[in-house]
Amino acid sequence: MAGSPRRAGGRRLLLPLLCLFFQGATAILFAVFVRYNHETDAALWHWGNHSNAANEFYFRYPSFQDVHVMVFVGFGFLMAFLQRYGFSSVGFTFFLAAFALQWSTLIQGFLHAFHGGHIHVGVESMINADFCAGAVLISFGAILGKTGPAQLLLMALLEVVLFGVNEFVLLSLLGVRDAGGSMTIHTFGAYFGLVLSRVLYRPRLEKSKHRQGSVYHSDLFAMIGTIFLWIFWPSFNSAPTMLGDGQHRTALNTYYSLTASTLSTFALSALVSSDGRLDMVHIQNAALAGGVVVGTSSEMMLTPFGALAAGFLAGTVSTLGYKFFTPILESKFKVQDTCGVHNLHGMPGILGALLGVLVAGLATHEAYGDGLENVFPLIAEGQRSATSQAMHQLFGLFVTLMFASVGGGLGGLLLKLPCLDYPSDSQCYEDQVYWEVPGEHEDTAQEPLKMEEPDTQA
Amino acid sequence: MAGSPRRAGGRRLLLPLLCLFFQGATAILFAVFVRYNHETDAALWHWGNHSNAANEFYFRYPSFQDVHVMVFVGFGFLMAFLQRYGFSSVGFTFFLAAFALQWSTLIQGFLHAFHGGHIHVGVESMINADFCAGAVLISFGAILGKTGPAQLLLMALLEVVLFGVNEFVLLSLLGVRDAGGSMTIHTFGAYFGLVLSRVLYRPRLEKSKHRQGSVYHSDLFAMIGTIFLWIFWPSFNSAPTMLGDGQHRTALNTYYSLTASTLSTFALSALVSSDGRLDMVHIQNAALAGGVVVGTSSEMMLTPFGALAAGFLAGTVSTLGYKFFTPILESKFKVQDTCGVHNLHGMPGILGALLGVLVAGLATHEAYGDGLENVFPLIAEGQRSATSQAMHQLFGLFVTLMFASVGGGLGGLLLKLPCLDYPSDSQCYEDQVYWEVPGEHEDTAQEPLKMEEPDTQA
Amino acid sequence: MAGSPRRAGGRRLLLPLLCLFFQGATAILFAVFVRYNHETDAALWHWGNHSNAANEFYFRYPSFQDVHVMVFVGFGFLMAFLQRYGFSSVGFTFFLAAFALQWSTLIQGFLHAFHGGHIHVGVESMINADFCAGAVLISFGAILGKTGPAQLLLMALLEVVLFGVNEFVLLSLLGVRDAGGSMTIHTFGAYFGLVLSRVLYRPRLEKSKHRQGSVYHSDLFAMIGTIFLWIFWPSFNSAPTMLGDGQHRTALNTYYSLTASTLSTFALSALVSSDGRLDMVHIQNAALAGGVVVGTSSEMMLTPFGALAAGFLAGTVSTLGYKFFTPILESKFKVQDTCGVHNLHGMPGILGALLGVLVAGLATHEAYGDGLENVFPLIAEGQRSATSQAMHQLFGLFVTLMFASVGGGLGGLLLKLPCLDYPSDSQCYEDQVYWEVPGEHEDTAQEPLKMEEPDTQA
Repeated sequence: MAGSPRRAGGRRLLLPLLCLFFQGATAILFAVFVRYNHETDAALWHWGNHSNAANEFYFRYPSFQDVHVMVFVGFGFLMAFLQRYGFSSVGFTFFLAAFALQWSTLIQGFLHAFHGGHIHVGVESMINADFCAGAVLISFGAILGKTGPAQLLLMALLEVVLFGVNEFVLLSLLGVRDAGGSMTIHTFGAYFGLVLSRVLYRPRLEKSKHRQGSVYHSDLFAMIGTIFLWIFWPSFNSAPTMLGDGQHRTALNTYYSLTASTLSTFALSALVSSDGRLDMVHIQNAALAGGVVVGTSSEMMLTPFGALAAGFLAGTVSTLGYKFFTPILESKFKVQDTCGVHNLHGMPGILGALLGVLVAGLATHEAYGDGLENVFPLIAEGQRSATSQAMHQLFGLFVTLMFASVGGGLGGLLLKLPCLDYPSDSQCYEDQVYWEVPGEHEDTAQEPLKMEEPDTQA
Repeated sequence: MAGSPRRAGGRRLLLPLLCLFFQGATAILFAVFVRYNHETDAALWHWGNHSNAANEFYFRYPSFQDVHVMVFVGFGFLMAFLQRYGFSSVGFTFFLAAFALQWSTLIQGFLHAFHGGHIHVGVESMINADFCAGAVLISFGAILGKTGPAQLLLMALLEVVLFGVNEFVLLSLLGVRDAGGSMTIHTFGAYFGLVLSRVLYRPRLEKSKHRQGSVYHSDLFAMIGTIFLWIFWPSFNSAPTMLGDGQHRTALNTYYSLTASTLSTFALSALVSSDGRLDMVHIQNAALAGGVVVGTSSEMMLTPFGALAAGFLAGTVSTLGYKFFTPILESKFKVQDTCGVHNLHGMPGILGALLGVLVAGLATHEAYGDGLENVFPLIAEGQRSATSQAMHQLFGLFVTLMFASVGGGLGGLLLKLPCLDYPSDSQCYEDQVYWEVPGEHEDTAQEPLKMEEPDTQA
Repeated sequence: MAGSPRRAGGRRLLLPLLCLFFQGATAILFAVFVRYNHETDAALWHWGNHSNAANEFYFRYPSFQDVHVMVFVGFGFLMAFLQRYGFSSVGFTFFLAAFALQWSTLIQGFLHAFHGGHIHVGVESMINADFCAGAVLISFGAILGKTGPAQLLLMALLEVVLFGVNEFVLLSLLGVRDAGGSMTIHTFGAYFGLVLSRVLYRPRLEKSKHRQGSVYHSDLFAMIGTIFLWIFWPSFNSAPTMLGDGQHRTALNTYYSLTASTLSTFALSALVSSDGRLDMVHIQNAALAGGVVVGTSSEMMLTPFGALAAGFLAGTVSTLGYKFFTPILESKFKVQDTCGVHNLHGMPGILGALLGVLVAGLATHEAYGDGLENVFPLIAEGQRSATSQAMHQLFGLFVTLMFASVGGGLGGLLLKLPCLDYPSDSQCYEDQVYWEVPGEHEDTAQEPLKMEEPDTQA
């Protein structure tokens, strides 16, 4: 990365200035475009003669809150496994997601809920914005510890737009079904982050190797993230599906899939270890793959057995990925994937998309009855055969991979702008670079880290 | 504080005796006065021919549970940032809130739900009691680390009564709207605690200065509190509002406001720092100010832009308060505010009340339609103009400040009763004074703390 | 325990093989037997002309999610109090519960929801499976730190079956009411675990005594578990009760009971201490006894006062149990109860069953009105008197104790199978035996633990 050495303090002004500028811009856009929808507006709601019980709030808000916990507690603490990067993991998750919520309310609003010159918001826009924030955080996982907050903010700025466009192409143009986002969230977020990490490849990252592991208590903090993600994943997948049997079935399928991915992760983690001991990295991550893999198909008639089988497969692939593929990804493909998002979101996301192809292709009027209208409206209306729906699903996966890859590449170039501050190779995975860290902490840091100038990130 | 030296052991008997006495007293009062309401009583519910789906439980219980998480996990862990006071922060929160729930069920019941000689309870009384417990915990934040549990219990005893009376004056007598409690909870709780802390001023508190900071992992525990408070604040503000569009709009406004306060906190924290680094104290606290500031107005037609602007302002004021005002508060006003409740609840609470004045004053029949009846019944019924409502809102703020200040002063005198045990100036912020602490912990405490007699707290 | 010394590595293969075998077996059973019920199946739901709002999902899913948090976060972190056993506490909870959910879906399905050759699943089977997992985790608490994961898996295999049979005998054959499971979950889980722990008695467990305590931060992790259990217990007891007033009243009673057990625990903990200081073990556990003690009676017309009195009694008995009875249990009865499940689940469970006897015996048509049909259908239909119902409740307790004791004994024999791996007496309460533990952690473990052969567990 070019650029003559400058005072870190000078560069550091960029973060607050970007924050203030973006906040000002979104506020103006909100003022011009964003309005309460007919379920949140006092006059509109009471104009129709609605029963309060019919307000969408009561059908989706509990699920929304579960998703909200996943985004902020789940992702934040899951990434807090690093011994010296807990403040950044939890704090930047908080920061990035807060920005993404506002920004994606606008982007998704323009694309999905723009009527009469206004974006109309309610609980569904809250859920959709949280989903988009989830994708941003998945990408964050790939570059965790190697980027500064101003870089992350720009990444989110770009990614939210591309997420919205990709989602629009899939759901609105192609008629793809992807309630829990195997494609739109997990595959997109993972490959966006992985390509971005490739562009930011650091050949001398081993200078920070000693900080790349966990300590005992940081692994327990990470388990807070894991467990909350695991618990609430049924709500994640079911939050945006059709009411009634749709939400109910989606939650049930996800619940089964997760139990199976947990068992297969424990089994495989012990199997691939030299002495039969379990690896916390596997448990913290691969056990969640069961939620990812049924993101597309859990609203469909997957059957409880199908959910178990899918979860089992995802846990297995994910654990094997951590053990065997992550090292290759770095050595051969020059992708440094801090959290292993390729194993947790990338491969299980693709598997989930393919499972969606399969289950959509098997859809029949017998299996879905009058519920076919809800799950596959285009098949129910006779516009498509099940096979055609399956082909569209498959095409959606390719579109997603393309958007994610090109977007991640663009993102990488954006993050290499010379004005942006980032940690040097020997300062990666270290909170002190961006946070005032209490000196009396237990672990390392006898000598305070010198604030050197960034070196590589070429 | 007067009183001849006594054996700590003797004084320590007071806590269990007070507990047992208060529990006995509330139990007797429950036996005499508290009854199931028509939604929780088997006979009453089935006497009317209700659909089970119409039971208030299904409209408010999920929000109640979110509030419950905020009170016990949110406040408890938020205060666990101190390096040696985690047991007390989480434990005394648990203890105080459990007592406050019982006691405020009675006090609020007598004031709001007393019919035919009985208090009738259901999910709404659970929410209201949790709100009152929230105010008590805000006050606790101001004196954290400097008081004993028996003192805290007496504080709660007094504060719950005054909270109930203030709330009654505002909501029932003045017709003030304050769903999320910018006034009744945040302003009241903060100034009650601050005045109380002023009365208990310790000139030699620097003896415990070395324990007043955080350690690495205690800051992460505090972030658990922050994040759960942040996530569930939309439920806090919307829990008691009118059903339908009311709850929906309140949650949405709070959600937007919090995203803005988070961005402004990150921006300001970096701006006011000498080297551009972020301060955990700001992130843990000021990012939440967006929830406080829309406590009054989030049920109104604040507009999404209004929510963003309010949140941005609150995060800014709160961060600046931590940086510049807290030191002055101690040096000039002799108020030692451990958690900075003035910045998180005091100033944002007042701002929230003023915002409520503004938004109420702007209320029109056009903007609210038939929903005006729900938000401003007195305006809808023609008993008041919008301007008059605004004036009542403003008067409500003054009443609250008066109740809080006088109450905090009384509370301070009560806590100085000579029979009460409290930590000496050199024992503040230290769990060992009131807890059996495992000796093998990581940080300090090579030599166990001697249980000296209390010294100042004049 | 017999058996010639073998390579630990060889024995360690058993865990993954058992996992894979059990997962395969449950998957096949799911394929053959498990089907969506009429509320989760697309065709069945839409065949009837249901309003989506009538789907059971909306009445029970929020409560289910709260229960889910309790099982995975609550139990997992509550047991993480041990200084070197956090990975195992949280991890094995995760593992055991995931298996128990699948397995008990089958067992409970065969016993309760088997129609036309199929088990029909939906949100109620999810709740019931979580309840069964709760019982397994209670038993796990008694033997925490002294068993290997393969042993635990076999324990769950057996316990889930016996849990299902006991529950079937009580609820279906005897017509016993036990919504929150004072008997079926707490009493059963506790005595199953205690008898099992008796069979696995280790006379030389003092070799691991130095690891049996907590450290400062492990106690805070445990408080995460405590607080989430405490908060969501009202949802636990009310999750399976009748809709409407049933769920509402159950949640309310549990909420009151828990506040009282918290106050009595704080009072008693200070009282029984030599110097008036509080003991974290009491606060973490006994404060929860109020949830256990109203498990049976909280759906009944217990009255708010009754809830307070029951909670107070339970907190008192539980705290005294930790102080005085746990040592006797080990020295006299040779039961090593790691988490004190006898105090938290055993005695309060029995008290809860007896309270259920009392409250059922006092049931009148006046008190319950037309709601009697929901709470005591057999009394409402005239098949039983209240006294007869009370006698059946009492008999249910004896049946539960019998099933638990015999089951625990069988379980102990099963876990002593020579092929099973377990930690030696000097390796108990130590994560390194089963987990790859980061070397740089803060506390002990300068020298890595040698993987010795198991010694006693005779």
